[in-house]
Amino acid sequence: MNINDKIGIYPGTFDPITFGHLDIIKRACKLVDKLIIGVAENVNKHTAFDTKLRTSMAENEIKGLGIDADVISFNGLLVKFAKEQNASVIIRGLRAVSDFDYEFQMSWVNYKLLPEIETIFLPASEDTQFISSSFVKEIARLGEDVSKFVSKGVQNELINLNRIKNGE
Amino acid sequence: MNINDKIGIYPGTFDPITFGHLDIIKRACKLVDKLIIGVAENVNKHTAFDTKLRTSMAENEIKGLGIDADVISFNGLLVKFAKEQNASVIIRGLRAVSDFDYEFQMSWVNYKLLPEIETIFLPASEDTQFISSSFVKEIARLGEDVSKFVSKGVQNELINLNRIKNGE
Amino acid sequence: MNINDKIGIYPGTFDPITFGHLDIIKRACKLVDKLIIGVAENVNKHTAFDTKLRTSMAENEIKGLGIDADVISFNGLLVKFAKEQNASVIIRGLRAVSDFDYEFQMSWVNYKLLPEIETIFLPASEDTQFISSSFVKEIARLGEDVSKFVSKGVQNELINLNRIKNGE
Amino acid sequence: MNINDKIGIYPGTFDPITFGHLDIIKRACKLVDKLIIGVAENVNKHTAFDTKLRTSMAENEIKGLGIDADVISFNGLLVKFAKEQNASVIIRGLRAVSDFDYEFQMSWVNYKLLPEIETIFLPASEDTQFISSSFVKEIARLGEDVSKFVSKGVQNELINLNRIKNGE
Amino acid sequence: MNINDKIGIYPGTFDPITFGHLDIIKRACKLVDKLIIGVAENVNKHTAFDTKLRTSMAENEIKGLGIDADVISFNGLLVKFAKEQNASVIIRGLRAVSDFDYEFQMSWVNYKLLPEIETIFLPASEDTQFISSSFVKEIARLGEDVSKFVSKGVQNELINLNRIKNGE
Amino acid sequence: MNINDKIGIYPGTFDPITFGHLDIIKRACKLVDKLIIGVAENVNKHTAFDTKLRTSMAENEIKGLGIDADVISFNGLLVKFAKEQNASVIIRGLRAVSDFDYEFQMSWVNYKLLPEIETIFLPASEDTQFISSSFVKEIARLGEDVSKFVSKGVQNELINLNRIKNGE
Repeated sequence: MNINDKIGIYPGTFDPITFGHLDIIKRACKLVDKLIIGVAENVNKHTAFDTKLRTSMAENEIKGLGIDADVISFNGLLVKFAKEQNASVIIRGLRAVSDFDYEFQMSWVNYKLLPEIETIFLPASEDTQFISSSFVKEIARLGEDVSKFVSKGVQNELINLNRIKNGE
Repeated sequence: MNINDKIGIYPGTFDPITFGHLDIIKRACKLVDKLIIGVAENVNKHTAFDTKLRTSMAENEIKGLGIDADVISFNGLLVKFAKEQNASVIIRGLRAVSDFDYEFQMSWVNYKLLPEIETIFLPASEDTQFISSSFVKEIARLGEDVSKFVSKGVQNELINLNRIKNGE
Repeated sequence: MNINDKIGIYPGTFDPITFGHLDIIKRACKLVDKLIIGVAENVNKHTAFDTKLRTSMAENEIKGLGIDADVISFNGLLVKFAKEQNASVIIRGLRAVSDFDYEFQMSWVNYKLLPEIETIFLPASEDTQFISSSFVKEIARLGEDVSKFVSKGVQNELINLNRIKNGE
Repeated sequence: MNINDKIGIYPGTFDPITFGHLDIIKRACKLVDKLIIGVAENVNKHTAFDTKLRTSMAENEIKGLGIDADVISFNGLLVKFAKEQNASVIIRGLRAVSDFDYEFQMSWVNYKLLPEIETIFLPASEDTQFISSSFVKEIARLGEDVSKFVSKGVQNELINLNRIKNGE
Repeated sequence: MNINDKIGIYPGTFDPITFGHLDIIKRACKLVDKLIIGVAENVNKHTAFDTKLRTSMAENEIKGLGIDADVISFNGLLVKFAKEQNASVIIRGLRAVSDFDYEFQMSWVNYKLLPEIETIFLPASEDTQFISSSFVKEIARLGEDVSKFVSKGVQNELINLNRIKNGE
Repeated sequence: MNINDKIGIYPGTFDPITFGHLDIIKRACKLVDKLIIGVAENVNKHTAFDTKLRTSMAENEIKGLGIDADVISFNGLLVKFAKEQNASVIIRGLRAVSDFDYEFQMSWVNYKLLPEIETIFLPASEDTQFISSSFVKEIARLGEDVSKFVSKGVQNELINLNRIKNGE
């Protein structure tokens, strides 16, 4: 890494990581010299998988992509984490059916907190834009096939999750 | 019912069924040969009324409409329920002030899961489009008049509900 | 056609007809017993192709689809045309990136004019939802490839159109 | 106050009151003869501060503004509270990134309940439109600086709140 | 008029004035001491009726309403016209299906030009919110009934307009 | 420029260039190694200033910014121009009050035409997000002050433009 390298953060809860996330990761890597996938601990939001598992799932998923990216979990303010990692840009996926208002508001709050860190939006690809972790968990909870939305590895973790929930 | 008959599903939580739901039911009946009102058990969403009561309330409401519709409760995937009922189309009401993004996303997820089942949207009528079950429950909780939003039968159920809650 | 058959109108300018239109046509056919593709003369909107050519292009496109649909041009009020054709439903494609407000407003105006005719919306498929006739014409005007958006037949008409414009 | 005076209600949870709220309060005062800031008890929504503290914080904040406004807490229906206060108009702030659909729906429900009371929307100013109480509480929870969003007094209350939560 | 009276401007093209406009006018009168209906000359927008006729149509329509309002045409900047009339507030109707983005942008531009003049939005009533002058003109052009949208007087002007256009 | 340098295109009509455009230009420069400001000839859209003048105005505006950017006019497909310039990313400003749908649709069309070129969105800053060239031209046409929206140089060009229009 040289001093002028552009480091970007792609933050999320990744609960679990889906093909939609992977689409953004692959494309974000081309925009920066180094991509950090920030797995938010997110104490406010009850997550199905704990931070450690969400982080390891993300690591497994990007192994096969031949990209230069790290997976690092964080808690606390996103912009503070970005600063600690010497990142200059936060990258967010934006879906035509995404909560555009919320994303815009977040970008302004982060700008007020730390103006030197930019937020950029990558439009989700049309064939993954409808995928959301919450839909995937609900469909998996009902024992249905989620192979169009998440990888084999993530499918297995979802099966384990539901086994534990059903006390098997 | 002959083999070519078009069966449609109008799914919802109906917690409780409102004049807005009844508007869509009356109009949806004209679009298909047979309408099934699918009352979702919805384990994820805490409901004020249990599935049995929500189903019976819906049955009472459609009695007076002179339409050919059944009320059936279901749990699990909507598209699976639709397939079991030999339905070819899912009908959803869409309000100018509705969560358009969510409805679109659901239609794409359902298409990915079972492409042969279509989703169509009926624009809510202007004079019922603002009615939502959550507003009705909140106004009834405050002991106020909800006769512009739900039938006499449903009003009585709401009164009972609040009596039980207030331990009367 | 028997008296109870459900006739639907899919109206549009089709200037020219695209893969997005054809996606809606194929799916709309499954919702009604008979589909009429209504090509609007649209005196208010300057069209690149005249009504006759837009109508014949649409006819050619649906030939290969094995569907029961007619192509009829009309001028004047859409609901009046629908009534003349004994249609009970107007079918409109709706894109997550479409002018949702305009479509809603149109459905209410049509309802006020002729309440017995319903408007239903079919969510566009994700892989054709971004296609619009205006983008196709602009890309073709620049001499670029539009084969991902329109058929070979329509491509040829676009080439002729631009030849005439360029006085070749 | 004379009989023709126009009284307006600016209702909210104010959990806590932010610079965004104060911007609307200052501007709303110019639209009516008397402004009542209605602090909603809001039994449905878990609030960080109780009604008494939210009310006193609001009172402290408006002291320095030299405006003619009262702060009154209420529970029950907003339109009923407005009627009790002889108000003729409900004033709501509207942000380009606000839940426009929800606000519209509320205004129609209130109109159905009590047609004589109007709802008007004031567009939030661009430099406060992104401020929301929930962001402020989350940033304060992380021990970060919220001085760009809330006053010194409110910052102190947020510090106390987090001390109590952390059992200090 | 005493010095503290609140004067409001309700600006528009009113080409022609519809029941939707009249709904806002009646409700806006209750918010201010004096309402001025500002008919914009609008050199940029080709109008069907000239300024003089649009102004007289508006005057005729409000005669029967028993309200204290003037109709004044203006060209140039809206905020300048408002200042000349000693108005303190611009009132705009907002429809759930209206161009919300444009209205918001206009309110910010006007605020930058003349901060002392406020813009407030009145949510259109559900039964007139879908009415737009352009729909009315198109339906009238086709010789159809527009009595659900505009008054008898305006209907007659529309008939004259189309006669002139058709060279009768 | 070395082979791995990331080149970005910021395309627009810039008719004329405003403070909103300059905000995006300054921030976009930090995201790429080299920024090209692409002034679209735009034969479809009647522009107030011709391509040459729009290009020279943009050049003058960026002189004082101390950034590494070129201004190049282009006609034809945006993605083709981007490819000719060896750009890997198209940068677009996005305003909370912008035509989000149109921008999304454009990004998908461009992706279909040339998948290797990405589109990213930069959220406009809150204090320039409401500025649009069309508002600026309208206010200038009325002889009013536009100094909050455009530079001294652009103001002079607007004055000349209106002189020519008024035949002075």
